Amino acid sequence: MKKTIQKIGVLTSGGDAPGMNAAIRAVVRTAMFYKLEVVGIRRGYKGMLEKDFVPMQSQSVSKILALGGTILQTSRCPEFKELEFRRQALANLQEEGIDALVVIGGDGSFRGANDIWKDFGFPVVGIPATIDNDIFGTDFTIGFDTAINTAMEAIDKIRDTAHSHDMVFFVEVMGRDAGFIALNTGIATGAEVTLVPEIQNDMDSLCNYLQIGRRKNKTSGIIVVAEGGHLGSAAEVAAQVKERIPNYETRVTTLGHIQRGGSPSCNDRVLASIYGYEAVGALLDGRSGVMVGRVNAKTVFTPFDEAISKHNQIDRSWYEITKILSV
Amino acid sequence: MKKTIQKIGVLTSGGDAPGMNAAIRAVVRTAMFYKLEVVGIRRGYKGMLEKDFVPMQSQSVSKILALGGTILQTSRCPEFKELEFRRQALANLQEEGIDALVVIGGDGSFRGANDIWKDFGFPVVGIPATIDNDIFGTDFTIGFDTAINTAMEAIDKIRDTAHSHDMVFFVEVMGRDAGFIALNTGIATGAEVTLVPEIQNDMDSLCNYLQIGRRKNKTSGIIVVAEGGHLGSAAEVAAQVKERIPNYETRVTTLGHIQRGGSPSCNDRVLASIYGYEAVGALLDGRSGVMVGRVNAKTVFTPFDEAISKHNQIDRSWYEITKILSV
Amino acid sequence: MKKTIQKIGVLTSGGDAPGMNAAIRAVVRTAMFYKLEVVGIRRGYKGMLEKDFVPMQSQSVSKILALGGTILQTSRCPEFKELEFRRQALANLQEEGIDALVVIGGDGSFRGANDIWKDFGFPVVGIPATIDNDIFGTDFTIGFDTAINTAMEAIDKIRDTAHSHDMVFFVEVMGRDAGFIALNTGIATGAEVTLVPEIQNDMDSLCNYLQIGRRKNKTSGIIVVAEGGHLGSAAEVAAQVKERIPNYETRVTTLGHIQRGGSPSCNDRVLASIYGYEAVGALLDGRSGVMVGRVNAKTVFTPFDEAISKHNQIDRSWYEITKILSV
Amino acid sequence: MKKTIQKIGVLTSGGDAPGMNAAIRAVVRTAMFYKLEVVGIRRGYKGMLEKDFVPMQSQSVSKILALGGTILQTSRCPEFKELEFRRQALANLQEEGIDALVVIGGDGSFRGANDIWKDFGFPVVGIPATIDNDIFGTDFTIGFDTAINTAMEAIDKIRDTAHSHDMVFFVEVMGRDAGFIALNTGIATGAEVTLVPEIQNDMDSLCNYLQIGRRKNKTSGIIVVAEGGHLGSAAEVAAQVKERIPNYETRVTTLGHIQRGGSPSCNDRVLASIYGYEAVGALLDGRSGVMVGRVNAKTVFTPFDEAISKHNQIDRSWYEITKILSV
Repeated sequence: MKKTIQKIGVLTSGGDAPGMNAAIRAVVRTAMFYKLEVVGIRRGYKGMLEKDFVPMQSQSVSKILALGGTILQTSRCPEFKELEFRRQALANLQEEGIDALVVIGGDGSFRGANDIWKDFGFPVVGIPATIDNDIFGTDFTIGFDTAINTAMEAIDKIRDTAHSHDMVFFVEVMGRDAGFIALNTGIATGAEVTLVPEIQNDMDSLCNYLQIGRRKNKTSGIIVVAEGGHLGSAAEVAAQVKERIPNYETRVTTLGHIQRGGSPSCNDRVLASIYGYEAVGALLDGRSGVMVGRVNAKTVFTPFDEAISKHNQIDRSWYEITKILSV
Repeated sequence: MKKTIQKIGVLTSGGDAPGMNAAIRAVVRTAMFYKLEVVGIRRGYKGMLEKDFVPMQSQSVSKILALGGTILQTSRCPEFKELEFRRQALANLQEEGIDALVVIGGDGSFRGANDIWKDFGFPVVGIPATIDNDIFGTDFTIGFDTAINTAMEAIDKIRDTAHSHDMVFFVEVMGRDAGFIALNTGIATGAEVTLVPEIQNDMDSLCNYLQIGRRKNKTSGIIVVAEGGHLGSAAEVAAQVKERIPNYETRVTTLGHIQRGGSPSCNDRVLASIYGYEAVGALLDGRSGVMVGRVNAKTVFTPFDEAISKHNQIDRSWYEITKILSV
Repeated sequence: MKKTIQKIGVLTSGGDAPGMNAAIRAVVRTAMFYKLEVVGIRRGYKGMLEKDFVPMQSQSVSKILALGGTILQTSRCPEFKELEFRRQALANLQEEGIDALVVIGGDGSFRGANDIWKDFGFPVVGIPATIDNDIFGTDFTIGFDTAINTAMEAIDKIRDTAHSHDMVFFVEVMGRDAGFIALNTGIATGAEVTLVPEIQNDMDSLCNYLQIGRRKNKTSGIIVVAEGGHLGSAAEVAAQVKERIPNYETRVTTLGHIQRGGSPSCNDRVLASIYGYEAVGALLDGRSGVMVGRVNAKTVFTPFDEAISKHNQIDRSWYEITKILSV
Repeated sequence: MKKTIQKIGVLTSGGDAPGMNAAIRAVVRTAMFYKLEVVGIRRGYKGMLEKDFVPMQSQSVSKILALGGTILQTSRCPEFKELEFRRQALANLQEEGIDALVVIGGDGSFRGANDIWKDFGFPVVGIPATIDNDIFGTDFTIGFDTAINTAMEAIDKIRDTAHSHDMVFFVEVMGRDAGFIALNTGIATGAEVTLVPEIQNDMDSLCNYLQIGRRKNKTSGIIVVAEGGHLGSAAEVAAQVKERIPNYETRVTTLGHIQRGGSPSCNDRVLASIYGYEAVGALLDGRSGVMVGRVNAKTVFTPFDEAISKHNQIDRSWYEITKILSV
C-alpha cells in the first residue's frame, strides 16, 4: 500500500485548539520529506464538500508553529453525517487526486473520518486536538496543556481580587463533559473547591464545606466549576450558595473562549509535531481508520471506533488531594 | 508643618488595581527614608472604623512590588459618608498616633479622603489607582496599563478562534463610564468596531458597517464593547445585531475580573513608585486635600474637589483612527 | 502638494523593535483610506538600492498587528551614506512611481531619510521605532514599552533565584547610550542598584553601598547595568565588585536580544497605529523632513536635523528614587 | 512505623526550580491533614547544620503556590559529604524533635538524603525538582515544564529579530549534561538545528547542513545549543561556524538564569502538589530512602541509589524529527 499514497489532504475540524497549526506544519513538512504532495482542505468537512482546497508546500507552514487557532480554519458540518454528502466529498477528493487524509480534531471530527474510512476504504489517520483532553487512546490531546495554563493564569489574576476584597469567586472553565481542565486548574490555583462532572456533589455538602472554611477565617476563595457539572453553571452554583449563605460576598466569572486561543505551550507544540510526523508515517505504513496518540510516552494507534466510544477518566484521587491541599 | 508629621497611615480603597502594592511599598520605604513611622490600615475605611491597624517597616513591603491586588486589602465602606462615622475614624487615627494619611484608590476613595480633610483638617494625600483611568488630574492611574495589556492579550486569544471559525465575537471590557480601556484595546487588537460610552452609536449604523465588512469578505471579527456603552452590554449588543443580521455567527465574551488582577506592568510599577514617593513628600511639604498625578510627564497635585468632579476625556480622533485601520 | 502624492513607499530600518509591524499596518491602511498606493521596501535602504519592492494592499497587513519584528525586514546599509548610492535609490523609487516615503526606524535611519529629503527634496516622514527610547522629539519610541516589560519579567524571574540562593545578580539590559530601559526596569524590579550611562558612578561608592545593604542583611539582590554604562558591562562590573568584596556570591546575566522581540505591548501597538496614521496624513499635508512623535500626549513633528542631533534625557530624580525605594 | 512519625522536616536543596514552593505547600498541608507537625529547614543542608529551623503551619504556605524560587531558600553544602557534619545534622534534627524528612531537590540533594538514611536509618523521602529533568525514576521533575516554556518564549522573541535581520542566532539553553530542555525547545521553536549532549555532532556536518539551508534561501535561523554539548558553548559553536562560513551573520544569546525562575506552569504546580502529598504519605507508610516520581502517569517510588546512579534518556527519534520538521 505504501507506494499508492502520493497526495495527502489535511484538515482541521471541530473546535479550534492551540497547536493545530503545529500539527498542520508537521504533516506538511513530513509529507515533503517523503516526497508527497499535500493539499490543505479549508474549513474542515465543509471545505471538502465545497472543494475549498489549497496546495501546500514547505513554506506554506513557515512561521505558524507559534500561532494559535488554525490557518486552515475549521467549522461544524452536520451534512457530513449523511452518506450522500460523503459520496460527494469522496468525489471531490478523488478529483483533486488526494489519496489519503489526516484529520486534526476531536471525537466529532473522528466520526466523520471513520465514516469515510468505513464507507469507501479511504485512508484516514486522525490527530487528537481539543482543549478538553477527553479523547480515548491518548494521554494528552493537542491544546489541553495550553488551555490549562491559560485558565490557571486567569484564575491567578482573579485570586488577586478575591483576596483583596475578601470575596469568593465562582470561575467557570471549559471541558465539555470532562473535568480535566477543572481538576488541573483547581489543583494549580489552590481552589478551595473544584466541581467536576465526574463526581457527584450536592449543594448541602458544598455549603457545609464553605462554612467550615469561613470559620477558619478563609474569607476569600476560588471555586472552580467545570462547565458540564451536575450543579449547573458557575452562575447557577453561585446563586444557590448565595441563597443558603446570604452573607457570602460572591462573584462569577466565566473564562470563556480565551481558553481556546493563544500561542501553544511547549508541550502542545511538541505533541502536535510528533503527532503530525507519526500520522503521515502511519498512512505510508498502510494504517487507516486510526487515531495517533501518546500513551505512557509512546506513540500508539487507536481505532476510531474505540477512540469515539470510550473516554479517558480523571484521576479521582486528585480530587481528594485538592481538598487536602486547600485547607 | 513639616515636623509635625511623625506617623503616616496608608490604605487602599475601592476596586483593587495592579500596582497598589507597588504604591504601598513606595509610601512605606519613602516614609522610612524620612524617619517616619508607618501604619497600614487594612480594608480601607472599614479598617479605619474597626481599628484594623498594622505597623509597617521596610521589610513589610519586601517582595510585593510584582504582586497584583493589595496586601492591605480593600473594601467599600458606605458608612464613611456619615459624619458620625468619620468622627469615630478620626478618633481611631488619633488614638494610634497617626497624623497624616495616604489614600490609594479611585474617586470614591478620594471623596472619603476629602471629607476627612475638610471636616477635621487632617492631612491627606491621594494616589490615583483604578484600572479605568477616569480620574481627573493625572494622565494615567495605577492599574490602567496592566489592565489594557491583560484585556489585549485576552482579545488576541479570542481572535484566534474568531478567525478559525469565521465568527464575530462581542467582547466586553471594563471601564465603568469611561472608554479608555475599550479604545486602547480596540486599537491594539485591530477591532472591527469599538463601542465607547463617550460616543453615541446607533444600531443602524453599526449593522450597516458590519455588513459592509461582510461584503468585503471580512467574515470574522472582534467588536469591543465598553461596559458603560449606550447600546448595552456585549450580550445585548450581540443579540440586537443577531436580530438584524440573522446569518451572522456571533459569540459573546465578558472578560470580567481578570482585568483587575495580575502582576503590574512596568509602567504601573514605575508610576506607583513615583506616586508613593511623591505623596509622602507632599505631606511633609505641608500639602493636603490633594491627589498626586502625572500630567505631561511632570508630577502635579490636584485638589480632591477637582479630581472628583471632573473627568479625563478620551481622544475622539482615536475613535476615527480605529475605523480607518480596521478596514 | 497634496495631490501630487499617489504612491507611498514604506520601509523599516535599523534594529527591529516590537510594534514596527503595527506601524506598517497603519501606514498601509491609512494610505488605502486616502486612495493611495503603497509599496513595501524590503530590508530598509538596502532594498531601496536593490529594488526589493513589494506592492501592499489592505490584506498585506492582516494579522500582523500582534507580531514582533518587521515583515518588511530590516538591515544596516552603510552604502547609503554615499551620495552616489542615494542617487541610485532615488532613481529606483522614481522608476517604481513612488513619490513619498515613510521611514520607520531610529536615528541612523533618519539620517538616511534626511539625506534623501535634503539631496533631492523627496518627501519623507519618519516614525521613531527603537527599544532604546533615545530619540529627541517624542516622549516614546515604538518598542520601548514592550522592551521594558520583557526585561522586567526576565529580571523578576532572576530575582526568584537570587533570593532562593542569597546571591547578587548583575543583569545587563540594552539601551545603547541611554539609560531609559535600565532606569525603568530598575525601579520596576526594585533593583538594589541601577547603573545608567547618564550618571557617573564610581566603584568605591558602589561597593560601599552594597556593603551597607549587606550589613542590613540584604544578602540577595539585583543590580541592573545599562549596556552603555561607565563602569563597563555587567560582567566587568561584577568582576570588579567580586575583587573588592570577595565573599559576595555574584552571577551575571546579559538579557540580550530577547528585549528586541515579542508581541508588542498595548502601548506600543497604539503608539505605532497613531504614528502610522499621522505619518501618512503629514505627507498629504505637504510635510517632509520631519519625524512624527508624541509629546505630552499630542502629536508633534520634529525636523530630522533636530531629532538626530538632540537626545531625550532621563529624569534624574528617578535615579534617586530607586535608591530610596530599594532600601 | 506509622505512628512514630510526629514531626516532619522539609527542605529544598540544590538549584532552585519553579514549583518548589508548590511542593513545600503540599508537604505542609498534607502533614497538617495527618495531624503532624512540620518544620521548615532553611537553606537546605546548610540550615540543617546551622539549626536554621522554622515551624510551619497551614498559613505559612498561603499564597506561595504561584511563586517561583523557594521560600525556604536553598544552597550548596559541601560539608554534608562528611560523616562528621551529618552526625551534627542528625543531632540538630533530633534536638528539634524532627523524626522524618522530605528533601526537595536534584540528584546532589538526594545523595545527602541517601546518606542520612543509610548512616542513621533516618526516614527520608525525596521529591525530584530540577529544571534539567535528568533524574531517573520519574518522567518529569518539578520545574522542567516551566523552564521549557520560558526558554521557548525567549527563543520565539529572538526569532522575531533573526527573521527581521536575516541572521542566525545560536541560543544556549540550560540542562547540564542532559538535552531535554534543548530538544523540547528545539522542536517547539522550529529550530534549524538542535545540539544535545547525548548526540555526537561534528562541525563539518553542522556547517554542511547550514549551507544546504542557505541554498534553499533559509537565511535566518535558530540553533539551539544545550549547555553540555560536545561542540562547546553557543559562543564557541558560533565562532567555529563563523570561521568556516564567514559570510554568515551570527549572533549568540545565552538564556541563562531566566530559565530557573518564574511562576510555575500548571503542570509543574500539579506535579509538585501530587509529589508533596505522596511524599508525606510514603513516610507515614514507612517508606524511606526513596524518591517519589511519576512514571506513565502513576506514582512510583525509586530507591535513592537508583535515582542517583541512572539517568533518563531523551527520545532519540525526536532528534530526527526536529531535522525533518525544520526543513
